[in-house]
Amino acid sequence: LFFPSRPCCLEALLNEAAAPGEPARPCPCPLPRGDTSLSRLVRRLLSARRSLDLCIFSFSCPQLARAVHLLHRRGVRVRLVTDAQYMGLHGSQIGRLRHAGIQVRHDQHSGYMHHKFAIVDQRMLITGSLNWTTQAIQSNRENVLVVDDAECVKPFLDEFERIWEEYNPANYSF
Amino acid sequence: LFFPSRPCCLEALLNEAAAPGEPARPCPCPLPRGDTSLSRLVRRLLSARRSLDLCIFSFSCPQLARAVHLLHRRGVRVRLVTDAQYMGLHGSQIGRLRHAGIQVRHDQHSGYMHHKFAIVDQRMLITGSLNWTTQAIQSNRENVLVVDDAECVKPFLDEFERIWEEYNPANYSF
Repeated sequence: LFFPSRPCCLEALLNEAAAPGEPARPCPCPLPRGDTSLSRLVRRLLSARRSLDLCIFSFSCPQLARAVHLLHRRGVRVRLVTDAQYMGLHGSQIGRLRHAGIQVRHDQHSGYMHHKFAIVDQRMLITGSLNWTTQAIQSNRENVLVVDDAECVKPFLDEFERIWEEYNPANYSF
Repeated sequence: LFFPSRPCCLEALLNEAAAPGEPARPCPCPLPRGDTSLSRLVRRLLSARRSLDLCIFSFSCPQLARAVHLLHRRGVRVRLVTDAQYMGLHGSQIGRLRHAGIQVRHDQHSGYMHHKFAIVDQRMLITGSLNWTTQAIQSNRENVLVVDDAECVKPFLDEFERIWEEYNPANYSF
């Protein structure tokens, strides 16, 4: 998937995921519907049934946050790792997601936690240059690869578990 | 490949690539030798025989610049796309590479050219979260995927050609 992605309305997609089978209320916004890189990314995330492991440096896109929140409400185990310096920036969605009960951990060193990957159901890896921000989605040249080849996914699963444990608050050293 | 990569001496690797077969002068620096994520990345780049297509948002790592310069001197066709705002930052290697005769193009819009990928000989894709900066290599949590599956590489080749043409100075609109 390549970005920038043109602006599009994701209401139908998100509402259908929130209340499957219910009659869709048409969204009054003037944004075009249809398939974009962003809608394809959201669709892949929403396909999660059991788990979603996220390592996202900068996360401020409200639509992606809604998708993640929705998965959490649906009972999918969401774990989110992010960067300590970027999680507090204006517009960050991390606080909202944490409030909603999602487990969040962050680095505690001076380098950045600069990964931008997601693993769906421990099987599908979504990774690339894209931070989960509206600026990146709508304005930047970005790429996102979707891979389900176990040989590629496994090292990312291992990296996630390693980071998740390293950033466990029980191990804080201050 | 995952980062941070511990500091290491790449002199032997780079000298061998610059003058294959010549007796290596031992480097007096105290850095450890041996295999690291950075040395593996450099090795992959140095395997180029015909072409190296680079889309790098931020490029300030002197060792990676040496590898690229070396390939250029060896007759490999190097094309480099970068971000207009980041190419002028202190420490950027873009000016040096351009001076050395390497073709460089950059975006001319307000969004970032945020890709960080390389394509070796139109066959091997090297892509991930890693900017080519010493800070990213030594301090950040980063990932780099190396893929030679044609189905994955082809869209990146197309994206490179699209960007290369779009950023052609002949098409400048100001």
